[in-house]
Amino acid sequence: MPNDKRIPQIPLPTLKRLPVYYQYLTRQAHKGVTDISCASIAKAMGLVAVQVRKDLQLTGAAGRPKTGYRLKELLEALEETLGYNNKTEMFLVGAGSLGKALLHHQKFEDYNIGIAAAFDVSDAVIGTEIDGKPVLSFQKFPSLCRRMHVKFGVICVPAEAAQEVANIMVSSGIEAIWNFAPITLELPDTVIVQNENLTASFSILLKKYKTKKIGSERE
Amino acid sequence: MPNDKRIPQIPLPTLKRLPVYYQYLTRQAHKGVTDISCASIAKAMGLVAVQVRKDLQLTGAAGRPKTGYRLKELLEALEETLGYNNKTEMFLVGAGSLGKALLHHQKFEDYNIGIAAAFDVSDAVIGTEIDGKPVLSFQKFPSLCRRMHVKFGVICVPAEAAQEVANIMVSSGIEAIWNFAPITLELPDTVIVQNENLTASFSILLKKYKTKKIGSERE
Repeated sequence: MPNDKRIPQIPLPTLKRLPVYYQYLTRQAHKGVTDISCASIAKAMGLVAVQVRKDLQLTGAAGRPKTGYRLKELLEALEETLGYNNKTEMFLVGAGSLGKALLHHQKFEDYNIGIAAAFDVSDAVIGTEIDGKPVLSFQKFPSLCRRMHVKFGVICVPAEAAQEVANIMVSSGIEAIWNFAPITLELPDTVIVQNENLTASFSILLKKYKTKKIGSERE
Repeated sequence: MPNDKRIPQIPLPTLKRLPVYYQYLTRQAHKGVTDISCASIAKAMGLVAVQVRKDLQLTGAAGRPKTGYRLKELLEALEETLGYNNKTEMFLVGAGSLGKALLHHQKFEDYNIGIAAAFDVSDAVIGTEIDGKPVLSFQKFPSLCRRMHVKFGVICVPAEAAQEVANIMVSSGIEAIWNFAPITLELPDTVIVQNENLTASFSILLKKYKTKKIGSERE
């Protein structure tokens, strides 16, 4: 089956796993591994080998019988599929604790994802630098966004301010938003959004734990 | 249909939405709202009213025709369902930038979730306090964990160290792990895990954006 890269149709569950393969395989490459089999990837990831083969097939990478994949080729195929081969610049709004953590997150650089600048409304942080990235007044967002053709925005402001920030992002040319504020943003259909909600995520762990506890007490 | 709270069987998609309802409803309560309808919740969350009614039914809360839910009762039902009515204490390991952001994350307190202490191996942070929470030597983790009966662990260490930290957590009595390291942990079946992977999450946004771009260029 030929893999037409111009129309990448990757199912969401696979799309969620591909970056995790990439992270694992990068660590293996750093260890000096040059060839790797589906079976060993599957073992490390807690998956079955058939699943790994099916997922990796979607990147166009071809494994060889017995020896498996050439790691360098596989990494390149994943980089192209996931868009890591082109630099992605983001503008982050809200340089509070979470915003600062993202600015400090060195790992993004490994994937060619960079936060070009951060924006805030607080005089306490405007004019400072976090990990070499400037924190600017949010008033400068629209003009800088247009001038630098930045298409990715990260929202790290409180829930109350998030919709207004999103509106300004969209009118400034942002086309994809990574939203850490715990609200559902109203956005035009042309804008893509990925929501992160840490409290909601922890709540799932909490609920699973409590459900299990009750189950085991009844046994 | 009676709602037997002792065997909470909540489907995962609903479980993911319940904390987001709770966050939205808390904000409404702060604004002085006392009664709220499914329709208005649905509008704010970008869902259909039937879905909201079905989700909230699982908490045991009963809405009334026309006026909807009494907000206070609905919040209490959600708190009980999600386990926010009992204090949950966590131990966090790895006081780097992400660990610090979680320690600073005031919102957790609103849900009765608290980070009791942080642990690290670096002398640069051991002995300091972050937002009033002590950063202790990781060597003290096992004894303190047992003494304080802490069951929830948060892993914010690099991928290379995460499995070892997880092993020590499990042998110290941790039963639920919130894992921010980008690896698949090998854990006993008795331990519950919730994985967060920020780079993987961003990659989904990136891929959706690129797929959409290619689609629109071809139209």
